[in-house]
Parts: sequence; structure tokens; C-alpha cells
Amino acid sequence: MKSEKTPDGQVISRTPFSASKKVHIKGQLHDIEVAMREVSLSETKLHGRFGETEPNASVTIYDTSGPYTDPDADIDVKKGLPRLREQWIVKRGDVEQLDQISSAYGKQRLHDQNLDHLRFNYISKPYRAKPGMNVSQMHYAKKGIITPEMEYIAIRENQRIDLLNGENDVLGHQHQGHSFGANTPKGHITAEFVRAEVAAGRAVIPSNINHPEIEPMIIGRNFLVKINANIGNSAVTSSIEEEVEKAVWACRWGADTIMDLSTGKNIHETREWIIRNSPVPIGTVPIYQALEKVNGKAEDLTWELFRDTLIEQAEQGVDYFTIHAGVLLRYVPMTAKRITGIVSRGGSIMAKWCLAHHKENFLYTHFEEICEIMKAYDVSFSLGDGLRPGCIADANDQAQFSELETLGELTKIAWKHDVQTIIEGPGHVPMHLIKENMEKQLQHCSEAPFYTLGPLTTDIAPGYDHITSAIGAAMIGWFGTAMLCYVTPKEHLGLPNKKDVKDGVITYKIAAHAADLAKGHPGAQYRDNALSKARFEFRWEDQFNLSLDPDTAKEFHDETLPADGAKIAHFCSMCGPNFCSMKITQDVRDYAKENGLDDDNALAKGMEEKSLEFAQKGSELYL
Amino acid sequence: MKSEKTPDGQVISRTPFSASKKVHIKGQLHDIEVAMREVSLSETKLHGRFGETEPNASVTIYDTSGPYTDPDADIDVKKGLPRLREQWIVKRGDVEQLDQISSAYGKQRLHDQNLDHLRFNYISKPYRAKPGMNVSQMHYAKKGIITPEMEYIAIRENQRIDLLNGENDVLGHQHQGHSFGANTPKGHITAEFVRAEVAAGRAVIPSNINHPEIEPMIIGRNFLVKINANIGNSAVTSSIEEEVEKAVWACRWGADTIMDLSTGKNIHETREWIIRNSPVPIGTVPIYQALEKVNGKAEDLTWELFRDTLIEQAEQGVDYFTIHAGVLLRYVPMTAKRITGIVSRGGSIMAKWCLAHHKENFLYTHFEEICEIMKAYDVSFSLGDGLRPGCIADANDQAQFSELETLGELTKIAWKHDVQTIIEGPGHVPMHLIKENMEKQLQHCSEAPFYTLGPLTTDIAPGYDHITSAIGAAMIGWFGTAMLCYVTPKEHLGLPNKKDVKDGVITYKIAAHAADLAKGHPGAQYRDNALSKARFEFRWEDQFNLSLDPDTAKEFHDETLPADGAKIAHFCSMCGPNFCSMKITQDVRDYAKENGLDDDNALAKGMEEKSLEFAQKGSELYL
Repeated sequence: MKSEKTPDGQVISRTPFSASKKVHIKGQLHDIEVAMREVSLSETKLHGRFGETEPNASVTIYDTSGPYTDPDADIDVKKGLPRLREQWIVKRGDVEQLDQISSAYGKQRLHDQNLDHLRFNYISKPYRAKPGMNVSQMHYAKKGIITPEMEYIAIRENQRIDLLNGENDVLGHQHQGHSFGANTPKGHITAEFVRAEVAAGRAVIPSNINHPEIEPMIIGRNFLVKINANIGNSAVTSSIEEEVEKAVWACRWGADTIMDLSTGKNIHETREWIIRNSPVPIGTVPIYQALEKVNGKAEDLTWELFRDTLIEQAEQGVDYFTIHAGVLLRYVPMTAKRITGIVSRGGSIMAKWCLAHHKENFLYTHFEEICEIMKAYDVSFSLGDGLRPGCIADANDQAQFSELETLGELTKIAWKHDVQTIIEGPGHVPMHLIKENMEKQLQHCSEAPFYTLGPLTTDIAPGYDHITSAIGAAMIGWFGTAMLCYVTPKEHLGLPNKKDVKDGVITYKIAAHAADLAKGHPGAQYRDNALSKARFEFRWEDQFNLSLDPDTAKEFHDETLPADGAKIAHFCSMCGPNFCSMKITQDVRDYAKENGLDDDNALAKGMEEKSLEFAQKGSELYL
Repeated sequence: MKSEKTPDGQVISRTPFSASKKVHIKGQLHDIEVAMREVSLSETKLHGRFGETEPNASVTIYDTSGPYTDPDADIDVKKGLPRLREQWIVKRGDVEQLDQISSAYGKQRLHDQNLDHLRFNYISKPYRAKPGMNVSQMHYAKKGIITPEMEYIAIRENQRIDLLNGENDVLGHQHQGHSFGANTPKGHITAEFVRAEVAAGRAVIPSNINHPEIEPMIIGRNFLVKINANIGNSAVTSSIEEEVEKAVWACRWGADTIMDLSTGKNIHETREWIIRNSPVPIGTVPIYQALEKVNGKAEDLTWELFRDTLIEQAEQGVDYFTIHAGVLLRYVPMTAKRITGIVSRGGSIMAKWCLAHHKENFLYTHFEEICEIMKAYDVSFSLGDGLRPGCIADANDQAQFSELETLGELTKIAWKHDVQTIIEGPGHVPMHLIKENMEKQLQHCSEAPFYTLGPLTTDIAPGYDHITSAIGAAMIGWFGTAMLCYVTPKEHLGLPNKKDVKDGVITYKIAAHAADLAKGHPGAQYRDNALSKARFEFRWEDQFNLSLDPDTAKEFHDETLPADGAKIAHFCSMCGPNFCSMKITQDVRDYAKENGLDDDNALAKGMEEKSLEFAQKGSELYL
């Protein structure tokens, strides 16, 4: 085991993206500034016209990296990020700041001097809803209120600033061309549309009032598909410092939310460091920490202990909780004949508790009490699929779908309390069984957002499960899954390191973006088109800068053609200087244009003459 | 540019796979021995019964690695592989061995003493069909002949030896449960089924009579999905030695065919080295070499020069030719408004030739003469999609589908000559447009096998295009594509090195296998199940050995838990020793079994008592 170490500023990744700057787009309803990344592009050199060029418009990109990539931002990891949302929250007038934290366990940790060296030094006093108040975004949405969070999201989701032209575009109560509930948004996203989707339960805004540092984001199938990155220590490896850097690193490459799945030492302190430095929502599985508190004895878990854990974490600012309330006693024996039984850690803990006590799952029996806690801090439910399949052979079985029906029942209860809710899904599913998962989820869970782990489409490639699962993730994202939980190359083999985290995030950005394209999200394809145009015009640097991972693209290119000149050269090492189809195509196009052959009728009008001219010019077009 | 170097034995990968041996399964119709890989598994330790174990049956795997992974094989890369099929070919009595090669260019290279140091030393005299004879596997199939190649394939395709139990299983003219033309084979593959599919044109067996070294394989959508790996030098990089090792390396990891796409120096000599040492079929794009012969001037290409190139390569043993005969003059202007124009190198060469001469593509006008050459050596057509889209925006356009219709017309001409034919497909296609490609291909090309390059499902991830394309490849494989051309991480950036080749091959094995699972191929899922069972039982070594890449799986595992003891430990670094869902599940299962709770009614019968017992036992089950 490594020795514990808290972060200092040195290890946190802060490099801005090349040719990119932070831009801040002002709101119209609220005094907000939405952070986006703007990539500037070089000019197109016009063929056959020496020295003449044509500018290319810069491209704005949805940016999850937070202030870390802004060279003007003043960041001190020991103090945490600026509390962007704090005034929004306070101004609503429905919260109170507590004198001290409420959790018994939290207090105990706070007063343990042995932990002083691990503790985050600038812990704020927690906020909580005033008695009788409900501070969830769903509650506001149902009342018709467009919060600053909702407007922030509307601006951000469009990705293309040029979609936001003209007055009332963000405000517009008529969301043009967008069919509610359909998977293919047309036109652009408005703040009112965001509100309506949250009110309907089709989207959630994970945004604990005690995590004011986040840049608000939304999870719903009529928005950009989101991805989650799991981090967290275990009893065997890693330090607090490493985990905080992993979180920042994951956001840098595109993680929309982070789940802290720590199961090792000092879970409470690790979480505080992560939340205070995270610009994206944080999710946890509270049962993991509860189990640590009873020394790993599942049968010793109690509702009271669990309840204290929920409050402890809610007051730290966790934005969503995975709660395995659908693992019912009667479902457990359905897993006995599976090849891999129960593979969800939370699911197996609850199954064990149910068997040991022969009682119904206490998360199920106390569900309404959990709702009371959720709405006092605006923590969202992520209803866990504790009985998800752990291999291809176990996919779509009775245990899995029985639990899904129960999750649908719980969704309705949560919504009764205006608690935001998403539903977790598998796991391991062969391609031909993926669609059934989405259909059943929409049906049983009344269109609450689906949040799946992959699914992996085969089990024979440990070491490559980011890829086996990206296939399933892209497909289920297209079918309607709102958020994809990443899988790293280390899945089934070990805890991911920084390289694995990046590989997992980039792979899942690919899956999510492929799904956005297939769904026809209005802000998706323009980045592909800009990159394709840059590729065709041999604007290598633009191609790198527009890509999900500019560093790797540039590194790969430079491996075979390292000279700077090559990056403006009209060829690459794949084909060599005289054998490039892109170049040939441009020649063909120039030729067609020069000779008036650029419309479909041209050839029919008699090309023979022009063909002769071309032959007389000899090879000049080719070299 | 690197200096040219021919291979010596040292650089060629020869390590056998761990816990694996070559097995040879005898034919029933022919005197053949089909090479497969057999992975032995360790025993299962039975829970709660100290020392008691249960054996696990070994697993046979379709093996593309050839003799290189057989420690008993005597291989000399300077002499080439054993000529496995030579006697099968000669015995058919329809070929003659020529006194010398027929190609003018080939002769010129052969007599050029400056090339002596590059030349393969054991060149055999070429075979050719006797006058008036047709030596294609399709020709035999249509006559009702089951060749040794067909029986070899039938045995190999089943993958599971245990499916071949009982007499006549391979011979069986009734292919049980298999619906011809459907995508979901049931039961097992028979030699007669192979013959019938080849006769119908739904499958091809690329097997030039001058490449007797191959272990026969089949490409068709009612068989295992195959993958192709591209190798080949360019004017900028790599040596003959590197290319031969890349070919062997690609086969090691699962490439079913290799395309030699060399466009640099010494293409003729490089190809000879590759073919003589390749256990899998070799494909080429002859127009690349033809273009080199006219110093890169597309307009100087002639039918005569191209014809000589076809014969040159056919007599060396190339198993399939990509021929861009569908790029018609009238289709070229359809590409002018695309973002990326024509991205197929062959397509752009032919487009340029058509424009320069204002004549119809000579590959189209001479197509029947090409068929005459193909059937004299049994070279299969891979009809090239010269107008495939080069980016998401250009997918499924008029140019692409117009060419596809022409490829369908050409397929019928090829079949009239009994020439085996596959059809190449895209490229770059967003998910929602993939299915249309498969449907149109089946319709226009009369169910000839489809062979696609990916397709990439987004363009924003250069450096990761093995992944962007594996998503599309898995889907189109499920829909019915018979062979997937791999894409490496270097696509669009540079020429792949050995690591890239392996990454591309493994990624495409994943896509192909995911498609096999979704199609329900009878020999597919048992490997997943064996690996899943090993995973559940913490048989780490078995899990590694059953995976597509045992080296990487083991390396990743050992990064966090390197001690040998950990590989038999019942936990891994992801969760630590006391927090493993797999272990908890086994405890639940053992408990359910011991207490008679392993059927669905048990819980209803009153579990309270047993629950009490469990609680009294305390934590013993957990630790």
C-alpha cells in the first residue's frame, strides 16, 4: 500500500489546449457566464491561386475541463474551486446554512486529530433546505421556474455559439422543431426546453446545493450524451493526491461526471478533496462507505448507519447517489444459476444482507425516508442495477428485468417527492439484446434517464474492455441512453492509472459523440465537418486541435514525419508525396471547376475536347 | 527512407501461446489435417470442500497464426512455408506448371541483377489452368464437388471440436437447423454447406493455385466474421523484413487475410516474400503497382500494362485483387461537392484517368478479360468502392450508391465466369446510416459477401480510429458483412508500426466476435462462457489464456498485483481482499445451496430460521 498523500498544486494538470481559449457566453435570463472552449483555425490556401487564402471560422466546443484549462484562472487545490453557484442557491431563499455538519460519523472524523494531516482545510458549513422546503431542480422545474442552472445548460448544450443568434433564442418558450420525448433534437436547445425536460423527469441536473463549484450539466436523452468516469482508491492502491489528479484529468479529457468509488482508507477525507476541486458533478455509492464502517460485514449494516452516511455525503456535496433499492429478497435466488452470479458490489452486499436477515432490502423499505434526505440537498438518485448481468451468458435474464421493474416503481415514488432520478443499466450484453434493454427501461421507468455501464458486447478481451464496451455504449446511446459510464482497459484486471483513465474517457467520448451524430443532435456534426475539411485541406494542426486528443494525434503523426514542414505538407507518411488520394481528388475538383465540369450535366455536354486539353497539359496536375 | 533489408529468421515472431498447443483434426472426405489451437484449463476448486476439484474441458480456438506458433514446425523464412495445398491442386488435373512466369515486367525484375540481394531465393514455377479449364472454387462448387479446401473450412469454422461428434457430421448433406441466406447459423457447419454457399456466391474461398501455403478460409455471412489487416511499405517508410514480420504478427493476433498495399520501392520482391511466408490469403490493389510502373502518372496507365500486372501478381499467388471497376466516368462529378471528395486511392486514380482521357474506366470496359485471368489462377475479385465516403458528411450519397449498383452488375458478370467475388464497402458512416449500406449491398449485389473498411462512426478522434471504426464494424458485421478491414490507431496520421498492427487486429477481432455472438454463430459463445466461468472462479491464468491477447491481460493484472500468489487469490486490486462481489456471490450461492435455497420456491417456504443460523455463524462467510 502506498503512503497517504494530499494534493499540492504541482501534480494537477493545468496545460491549456493548443490553439484554444476559454470563452464566456452571457446569459439572458440570469447573470451567468457559460464557459466554453473556442478552437481557432488556420486559413485555407486556395488551390491554383498563389498566396490567396480563405478564413475558417473558429469552432466552439462543450468544455468539461473547468477552470483548469484557463490560464487566467487562479487555482489553489488546497482551497478548492470558486463557488460559482453559491449566490444562485442562496438567492432562492429556501436554504439555511447549518452551524455544523449533521452526521455523527462526519463529526467523529472532523474531531479526530490523527486525521488533521489528511483533511481539506477550507471546509464550508453545509447548506440544507429550510424545514418543509424542497430544493431540487425538479421541484423548481415543476413550478415553472427556469433556474440559472437551466439557462447555463441550455447555452452550453448547443455547443455552436452560432446557433444562438437573435433575441430570445435561449429564452424561447417555443423550442423550435424539437419533438419532446423523441431521440432526435432539431433546431437548438432553449432554457425552457431544459426546464420542461427536468419537470417531466426525462432529464436530471445533478447539483447538490453543497457542491456550488460545478458548472451545471444535464443528463437526458434529448441532450448531448454524457459520460461518467469512475475513480477512487481501494484497500490496495493509490493516494488522495492521485485521486484528485485523476478527477481533474478525467474532466480535462471530457468526463461529464465523476463517480468516487473509493473503498479503501480515508474515504471521507478523499471525497472532500475531490468534491472541492471538481467542476463536474460527483456521484458515489454510499453503501461502500457504510460497509467500511461495519468492517466489511454486510449483515451488520443498519438503516440508521446508512442514513447517517447519506447525510454525511449529502452535506459534503455529493450530487448523486447510487442506491441499490431494487435488489429484493425474492430476486436473489434468480441469480443462483448464472455463470457469474451477482457482479455489482452494491448488489451483492444487499443480497447478502437480505439473506442474512431474511428481511426485505432496507433501502427499499426506507425509500421514502431516503427521498426526504435527497430533496433537502438536491441529491439525485441513480437507482443501481444490483442484479445486472456479469457476462454475455447472463444478459437480459429474469433477475435483471425483475429488478428493472422495481426500479420503475421506485422512480414514481421519487418523482412524487420531486427527487431527480436516473436508472442504472448493464453491463454485459451481446449486440442483438441491447435494444431490448433500452425499450424495457423506457417502458418500466417512465422515460427516466438511463445510465449504463458499457455494455460490453463480448467477454473474450480483458485488457481491451474499453473497446468491447464502447461498441455497446455507442449503440445504447443512440437508442436513448443519456449517460454512459466508462470502462477502462484495466476493467476486470486492476485499478486504472492515469493513462487508463484517459483511454477510458476518450473512448467513451467517441461512443457518446457517435450516438449524438446518429441521434442528429444539432450541435454534433459541425465538429466532424470542420475536422474533415481540415483533413482534406491538409491543415494538420487544425486537424489535431479539433480532435478529442490533440496530443496523441500529433504524436502519432510526428512518429513518421516529425519535421515541422510536414505539418503543412500536402501528404502524409501513409501514401508518400506522390500518392495521396486527397491530393488527387483536389486536382480532379480543380480540373472540373476550371473546365466548367462541376455540375452534373457538364460531362454530358461533351468533355472530349477538354479531355484533350488535360492530356496536353501533361502531368502538371499530378506532381 | 530506411535502407532495404530482407528477412532473416530472427525477427519473425515464433512464440507459442501459453497453455496452448496445436491440434490437427483429420478430415473424413479428404486426407487433410486441420490446424486448431487448444487451450488447456486448470481445475475448479470446489467451495467449502477442501482440496476437492473439478476439471474444466479444454477449449479449441480457430487459429490464424499458421505454423509459426507450433514449436514442432520447422520454419525457414528464406524458404517459405510448407506448400500444404500443392498436391490437392495438382491432383485435380486441371492445372499445368509453366516453364517461366508470363508477365513481361516480372521477367524484367527477375533478370535484373541489381535486385538479386532482395529476391526470394526459392521461387517456384507458376501454375495456371490448362487451356479452357476453370480452377475457381466456385466452379467446383457449382459442379457439386466438395474440395479439400471446403472440408478444411467446415471443420475449422465450427471452432468447437465437440460439435463434430458422430459420423457424417462434416459430410452431412443436411445442414441441420441452418437456414440458408439467414444471418444466424444454427447447429454446425458441414462441408456440403460450405460448397453450397460458395456455389451460390454467398461465400468465397480466396485460394490462388499459386499460394498453396495457405490454410483455407472462407468469407461469407453465414460463417465466422473475418478480418483483414493491411500492411505494406510506402515511399517514405519500412523494409521488406519489417513487412514480412508485420504479416506474421498480424496472423498471430487473428488476421484472416492480409492486404499488401505497398506503394514504395520493390513492390514485386516484397510481395513474393510476404506470400511465401503467409498462412492466410493475400490481397492486393494491382492499380497501385501499375501506377508505380508509370511513375505515378495516372493518365499514362493502359489496359495492357494493367493486364501484365494482374498476371504478374496472379502467378506470384495473390489470392484476391481489389479492382475499382465501378468508378464510372459519369459518377465522378457526383463527388465534386463532397467535403472530402474521393478518398480511395484506387478510386481517385481511376477518376483521374477517366477525366484525362474522357473515356470510360478501362477496368470496366475490360472486365470480362479480367475475369478470364481470375479463373485461370482462382484469384477472387474484391470489387473496390472507389467512391466510398471519406467523412461522416459524405456518407450514403449518390456517388457511393451509384457505384454500388455498378458493382452489382459486375458481380453478375464475374459469376457468369464462376469467378469468386466480394464487394468492398465504406468507410465513414454514422450509426444510423449503417444498416442502409448493408441492405443496399445485399440487394444490388445479389448477396455477394460484403467487405467493409470500418466504417468509422465519427471523424473527431484521429489517433483512435481503430475504436471509432470498431463500433461501425461490429454493427455492420452483425447486419451481415462477411469481412471487416481493420483500421489502426495510425489511420489518417501515418503508417502503422507493429504495435499499431496488433492494436488494429485485436480491436477488429473484438468487432468480428461481437458480431458472431449477435448472429448466434454456434461456435462463438462457448469461448465467452469459458472465460466468464474462469473469471468468476478466479482462475486468473485461464482467464488470460482464453483472451484475445493473453500478454496484455496478464501485464495489466500484474501492474497492481504482481506477486504470483495473487493469480490464484480470490480477489484483485480493483476491490481488495474483503470487497469482492464475485466472492460475495459465491458465498451467497454456497449458502443458498447448503440451506436448500437454490430453487425459486425455497424463500417462500420460510427462510427465517435459516436466516437465524446464518446470523449466528457471524462473519465467517464473509472473510
